[in-house]
Amino acid sequence: MAGGKARYEFQRLHGMGEALYRGVIAPDGLDRPARIYAPVGSHEELLAYLVRRLLENGANTSFVNRLAHDELPVDEIVADPVARAAGFADKRNPLIPRPPDLYRPQRRNSLGIPHWEIHWRRPLVNELEGHLAEPFLAGPIVAGGTRRGGDQRPVVSPHDNRVEGGRCRDIAAGLLTSGLAAAKQGVADWDRRGGAARAEILERAADLFENDRSRLMAVMIREAGKTIPNALGDVREAADFLRYYAAEARAHFAEPTALQGPTGERNDYSLGGGRVFACISPWNFPLAIFTGQAAAALAAGNAVVAKPAEQTPLTAFRAVQLLLQAGVPGEVLHLATGPGETVGAELVADPRTEGVVFTGSNRTAATIARALAAREGPIATLIAETGGVNAMIVDSSALPEQVARDVLASAFDSAGQRCSALRVLFLQEDVAAPMLAMILGAMEELRIGDPLDYETDIGPVIDADAKRTLDAHKAKMRGDARELIELSLPPESRYGTYVAPAVYEIDGLAALEGEVFGPILHVVRYAAGRLGEVVEAVNATGYGLTLGIHTRIEETADFIAERARVGNIYVNRNQIGAVVGVQPFGGMGLSGTGPKAGGPRYLPRLAVEKVRSTDITASGGNAALFSLRPGEED
Amino acid sequence: MAGGKARYEFQRLHGMGEALYRGVIAPDGLDRPARIYAPVGSHEELLAYLVRRLLENGANTSFVNRLAHDELPVDEIVADPVARAAGFADKRNPLIPRPPDLYRPQRRNSLGIPHWEIHWRRPLVNELEGHLAEPFLAGPIVAGGTRRGGDQRPVVSPHDNRVEGGRCRDIAAGLLTSGLAAAKQGVADWDRRGGAARAEILERAADLFENDRSRLMAVMIREAGKTIPNALGDVREAADFLRYYAAEARAHFAEPTALQGPTGERNDYSLGGGRVFACISPWNFPLAIFTGQAAAALAAGNAVVAKPAEQTPLTAFRAVQLLLQAGVPGEVLHLATGPGETVGAELVADPRTEGVVFTGSNRTAATIARALAAREGPIATLIAETGGVNAMIVDSSALPEQVARDVLASAFDSAGQRCSALRVLFLQEDVAAPMLAMILGAMEELRIGDPLDYETDIGPVIDADAKRTLDAHKAKMRGDARELIELSLPPESRYGTYVAPAVYEIDGLAALEGEVFGPILHVVRYAAGRLGEVVEAVNATGYGLTLGIHTRIEETADFIAERARVGNIYVNRNQIGAVVGVQPFGGMGLSGTGPKAGGPRYLPRLAVEKVRSTDITASGGNAALFSLRPGEED
Repeated sequence: MAGGKARYEFQRLHGMGEALYRGVIAPDGLDRPARIYAPVGSHEELLAYLVRRLLENGANTSFVNRLAHDELPVDEIVADPVARAAGFADKRNPLIPRPPDLYRPQRRNSLGIPHWEIHWRRPLVNELEGHLAEPFLAGPIVAGGTRRGGDQRPVVSPHDNRVEGGRCRDIAAGLLTSGLAAAKQGVADWDRRGGAARAEILERAADLFENDRSRLMAVMIREAGKTIPNALGDVREAADFLRYYAAEARAHFAEPTALQGPTGERNDYSLGGGRVFACISPWNFPLAIFTGQAAAALAAGNAVVAKPAEQTPLTAFRAVQLLLQAGVPGEVLHLATGPGETVGAELVADPRTEGVVFTGSNRTAATIARALAAREGPIATLIAETGGVNAMIVDSSALPEQVARDVLASAFDSAGQRCSALRVLFLQEDVAAPMLAMILGAMEELRIGDPLDYETDIGPVIDADAKRTLDAHKAKMRGDARELIELSLPPESRYGTYVAPAVYEIDGLAALEGEVFGPILHVVRYAAGRLGEVVEAVNATGYGLTLGIHTRIEETADFIAERARVGNIYVNRNQIGAVVGVQPFGGMGLSGTGPKAGGPRYLPRLAVEKVRSTDITASGGNAALFSLRPGEED
Repeated sequence: MAGGKARYEFQRLHGMGEALYRGVIAPDGLDRPARIYAPVGSHEELLAYLVRRLLENGANTSFVNRLAHDELPVDEIVADPVARAAGFADKRNPLIPRPPDLYRPQRRNSLGIPHWEIHWRRPLVNELEGHLAEPFLAGPIVAGGTRRGGDQRPVVSPHDNRVEGGRCRDIAAGLLTSGLAAAKQGVADWDRRGGAARAEILERAADLFENDRSRLMAVMIREAGKTIPNALGDVREAADFLRYYAAEARAHFAEPTALQGPTGERNDYSLGGGRVFACISPWNFPLAIFTGQAAAALAAGNAVVAKPAEQTPLTAFRAVQLLLQAGVPGEVLHLATGPGETVGAELVADPRTEGVVFTGSNRTAATIARALAAREGPIATLIAETGGVNAMIVDSSALPEQVARDVLASAFDSAGQRCSALRVLFLQEDVAAPMLAMILGAMEELRIGDPLDYETDIGPVIDADAKRTLDAHKAKMRGDARELIELSLPPESRYGTYVAPAVYEIDGLAALEGEVFGPILHVVRYAAGRLGEVVEAVNATGYGLTLGIHTRIEETADFIAERARVGNIYVNRNQIGAVVGVQPFGGMGLSGTGPKAGGPRYLPRLAVEKVRSTDITASGGNAALFSLRPGEED
């Protein structure tokens, strides 16, 4: 193409393509210059480079690979790839599903927004600001009726205590009792509607949630201090929960399953609901967890009295409004606003509450378990999803750039206020220094600020109590451990409950008393031969929620994953942001009772099982036997 | 065939086959006599007769039905069925599975014995007597080691307190602690073996149980007072549990399931065990429930410390020996003999016990729940299967003979000592008198005696405590209710703990304070229009284990079944003898926590869930994408 005259040269990587090279430079060949080049760097850089090259060249479809096959016709090897692609009817590979269809045929995926693109972001931010022009008013919702007036409590914005996100009225004891009575009364009808009818309502709710996206996001940005991407994630997860549990209800709560058995008898197995559940949710995913709990209990045919966190009633209020609007009967979904110590405790103590779904602290979970056990009557169902002292283990084969990226996301996204967040980073001592240098360097780039500002990476922690606890932990660490970094807070953060991200190096897990729920990371160095002990130490905490592993050695990942008593293990990625149905989420031991939220065992745990055996010989027997044609079919 | 001379006549049912009849009697036809007959009786007898006839004649394959089809060739209609059958390669219909294959491909069915046939029964009884020649010796089994000697407690035979069934040593506190420590130590390896390897061992155990059938039966006949058919049933159920949970382990605990998600990431979902379970079982199914609990926990990859009922340690001892012989490692299966108040309580209080599987009384279940909740540490898993105030509802369309048969089996088989047994019979008042007459008449035929005697229908109750409680209830009923019958006990029963079967008529469920665990039936009459109230009253007991329905009206059965908060509903049959996998068994409310034993949700409840997400872009991405040929496949 270049012709004989043009000034051009070939290049080849040192050590590769010798034969081709000789043909290129030979005076009786192409007679062209060919530069030999070699990448320069230490082995850290080399490893990743070489792996990429090997994979590229080793692929069956690669030119280099095909060149070596003697049996391939030359025409095929030298075929013009551009021409080939031009011949495709569809430039997109139809075998790769588009994002909304990722989970088809089961359900539609929730919708994302490319908020990193200004022309998508600008209208979104405008909408958010529009919703924030007036404070949100909320209150209990019982039997479809809303009580917004009366004694309202201000809901303070964590980023700035001068900003009132809205006002909310707590539920009165009498009203809570009415809600429970209505739930008990209405649940049988709801149960009898069957999974398919309930699924339709929940799917309608998912659509309503997505239509109401910017309003829901605005509420969460203000009352929970969520960043814009985090608030969007919450809405998406809520919609995913609604559609996932709807699909599960349709699959398992619609028609009975016939069980295999002797002829003359029909044995039908079915799952049903019909119980009243208290759903007690936390502030850190004020929409997703609140909605997930309620959607699951409702999908299974139960009634729900939902108690949102005291800090985030406004989001919950809007969620219940939308659920009711979608068609959930008022009798089977009630919103009980107020503090856990009073409203939560009353709810759990009431014998009409037949089960509790709880996400929150360990201590509260134990209190609930004791309160339920103390009651007379049936043994209540309890699903508790609690905290974690989540580790990430990084060995010397890990890629530092990816480790840094994933550590920052795992430890500091959402100001570390995720159950799944990384708390203790185990670095193989041989690579700890450069890994830490990269991590700490990357941290300097984190922007702390108003969550409504798109540039903000890290917003406030939820409230003054949380800030006090975290600051106290830092003070302790400054004494007991080695501070590797503490970012400084920007001046405009002084009116909010901000905690500066920090990293402390500790000798081992004994330095921690439990979960530290904020943007504080602990680092432990370990010797290469002691990986087994690291896993044992992580298991010995008794927690088992998430675990990150960074290694290029599959055997190492398997070794850790097989031994770790942890619910969600993430290899070579961050350990947060579990997606409904894709990473069913939940831990074991001190981290929770199971089943995993957004997983296949969740609805069954909220269900009762029924088997109906019918002697059909009494009404003519198995008519299918008349149609069996023995012998003739042989 | 008969020829013109032979003396024969035709017969026809009045009202049927007019055309054929005319052809038969016509002088220019066959000219033969044809007798017209009609069944005589009241409408009770007529109904069943007519239904049977209609079904016979209405079947597509029936001669009468085919005769009416003009398009069928006459040759085909008059084809000789004997000749047709003779032409079959196989006289048996191969589409109807033989009993051992009923549950294929999942598993083999347990083996029955036709004990009603003397030439099968005689050798069996000889074997039973052989095993009973010497007393059984038992004791705790910890880490594979047996302690039979030392302080032994006699195990008394319920049918005769002069007969010692065997002797058993209770576990010492220190030994129990060793067992728990060994379990905690050994469980990880067992868990890592995977479901397929564990399934093999459990299936081997099932075979060993069946080979050891007569010995196991003998033990149960003596220490639990089981009749021969009941003891056989227990062995079969134990074998079924072993094979069912083995199949479940193979299906769900062998390989991870890939979850649907975006490309570039692999998400594997798996179930695992790794926890230590206390399995606390009752005396009424000393082999089946004991084995079922342990087999399930083991199948899911857990370790088991099994505490059998104080009354039936001999059976449990033999079961554990066989399980160990089959290959269950000694570290993960321990037998803790002794009383619930000491051994059971210690077991539940120990933090190494991470879950409890319990079958027994309500009161004990509540005690266990409280003890577990009182502990520090993770919230323990509790599966409790408790009692029932089980009803049967009989409407006026029910067939009295079937009702009588099913009431007797439901209320009095196993001397009423089944969780599933019928306690309260609701009879529609219009038919109550004749129904009762038939039931009470049939009861007179029941034989009470030594369970080793094949003629015995009803053996003793388990012990003196049980007898006292039941006799006290009878005394109360004689005052509060109307005694309809009380059978008399044979003189030879005086050395045993026998309770004579009895029936009392009561006004409603308020007359009962809870479960009456013995051969005592209560009868309530109800008005036809009040069926809804009957179901509500049954629900209002708070129990929900089994419910019998006898009706020929499908709508009535559906009406009841939809409303009843009951785990196992039986229509037009008895309500006992749930078969593993066919009638997964367990109730709701006061009757238990679920999941159903022998059902698809049991193993998952004993499991922990793990999800492993691997970013595969870090190691070359989704290689399958290279092979997708877009466009070309369009």
